[in-house]
Amino acid sequence: MTNSSRRTPILLATTTVLLLSSLFLPSIALDTESTSTMTASKIKGITNVVIAIAMEAEAAPFIEHLSLAEDADFFPKVTPFKAYRGLHEDCDITVVTNGKDDVHASGVDNVGTVPAAVATFLALQTITTTTSSPPDLLINAGTCGGFKRKGAGIGDVFLTTAVANHDRRIPIPAFVDYGIGRIESVNASELAKSLNAKLGVCTTGNSLDKHDVDDFHMEQNDASVKDMEAAAIAWSCSLHNVPHLGVKVVTDIVDGDKPTEEEFLENLSSAAKSLQEALPKVIAHVCGKHHHEL
Amino acid sequence: MTNSSRRTPILLATTTVLLLSSLFLPSIALDTESTSTMTASKIKGITNVVIAIAMEAEAAPFIEHLSLAEDADFFPKVTPFKAYRGLHEDCDITVVTNGKDDVHASGVDNVGTVPAAVATFLALQTITTTTSSPPDLLINAGTCGGFKRKGAGIGDVFLTTAVANHDRRIPIPAFVDYGIGRIESVNASELAKSLNAKLGVCTTGNSLDKHDVDDFHMEQNDASVKDMEAAAIAWSCSLHNVPHLGVKVVTDIVDGDKPTEEEFLENLSSAAKSLQEALPKVIAHVCGKHHHEL
Repeated sequence: MTNSSRRTPILLATTTVLLLSSLFLPSIALDTESTSTMTASKIKGITNVVIAIAMEAEAAPFIEHLSLAEDADFFPKVTPFKAYRGLHEDCDITVVTNGKDDVHASGVDNVGTVPAAVATFLALQTITTTTSSPPDLLINAGTCGGFKRKGAGIGDVFLTTAVANHDRRIPIPAFVDYGIGRIESVNASELAKSLNAKLGVCTTGNSLDKHDVDDFHMEQNDASVKDMEAAAIAWSCSLHNVPHLGVKVVTDIVDGDKPTEEEFLENLSSAAKSLQEALPKVIAHVCGKHHHEL
Repeated sequence: MTNSSRRTPILLATTTVLLLSSLFLPSIALDTESTSTMTASKIKGITNVVIAIAMEAEAAPFIEHLSLAEDADFFPKVTPFKAYRGLHEDCDITVVTNGKDDVHASGVDNVGTVPAAVATFLALQTITTTTSSPPDLLINAGTCGGFKRKGAGIGDVFLTTAVANHDRRIPIPAFVDYGIGRIESVNASELAKSLNAKLGVCTTGNSLDKHDVDDFHMEQNDASVKDMEAAAIAWSCSLHNVPHLGVKVVTDIVDGDKPTEEEFLENLSSAAKSLQEALPKVIAHVCGKHHHEL
């Protein structure tokens, strides 16, 4: 979820679903050397990938494209989280979403750091328990706000080089770095070339909007893009020693001068198309490869 | 953890440990009707209580006072969280702390919403799995900042009536309530009388400091006290359908005019003493009672 204030929720949700569902999904250009002649068990590289996507509408077209099936037993029954799984070209794929809000009966997507961290932790724990090893990679995919000062344009795909928090200010010297919570992403420079994607830091906060203090800390984090989940997801990944990578598509410009709602609705189509085009290519690129080849 | 900027961390940690450890721990005035003649299995009310405390130094004296033993197998090995357990006057007590930060190698306590939510979720899950039912109550104990406009004074014990977030601003109509994330606490008005404690809303944010936008949202939440974990802990409790109660002791005045560090250090002793005096009384009051009697 990205930074846009004053959006109309019903219009947003409906528009997102319609746009995402109706867009063309490209076929996957697989690395035939790494996948066509080997079974999953023989591949030494990445064979088990979790893809964390906060909002159902962002995830639905990708789940459909890969023909993933919902696994109703994946998460504990008490959680709202959803999992969709399948074997795709020698790679075990698990898409997890944060589900809908029942706690406050709003029915909106459980955006923000807390649900994302819990869902990610549980997903990695379940896979570790059932396969006797943690997944090889977690990809955090979704929309974001982009900073024009860092070269971001609408519809751009950014791969994260690192993630950090801009709303955990703990001005006690020993706590400052913990509060910022910067975590390095896996090096994906080859993938960036392959996708013609940009590279940069994603800064995370629990608010959709931002104010001057946020601005200061986003700049201190050297942020190229801004979201509401990445740093929390990466923290749960770190506990499980699972490398993470953010694949973030820009829907609006954080340091621009257009009204956010207007810009978001104007650009949702191109951003959604970018995400849908990018994700299958990301999967095709990473599956079967070693981490240092990404 | 409460809102104080520019504290000296080593001094803070050392002072806290020394003060907490050296204070007199009162004996528990048990409700003899509910405990002295019944075994745990016969009591129909609250017999299994989790106490979530963010910082080790806040938890240590209480753990020692109740002679709880560390249960190294309680949390998954990949987590930094700690659990201390024991049977105390017919009540199964589990104290959980968020442990120390290894992810960013700072070694500080894992304060803030993300670790608190994950630790709480896992604690409730483990107890539910091992005892075939969720715990009866989760108590979130610790220090906090207090608002003088709501009658808070240094060393006051507040029992939460509800919790909410002041740093999850999502200004889309359907998302606003989700962002605020208000969750009602268990009604503890009898306990408040018994303890001579105050009642009020605890507002949660990931920053130790606050700015004008936070101030606005804290006031909107009708906050009496401010902390960094309560709303996230309550969210995990809600998933498990476990009632929660915050027991928060005021170390400094959020809307006061004294420098926070000075005020905090000046008042740590009385606040720590209040927490230590309150917690055993809280346990004595709730164990064996039904929720509506609290």
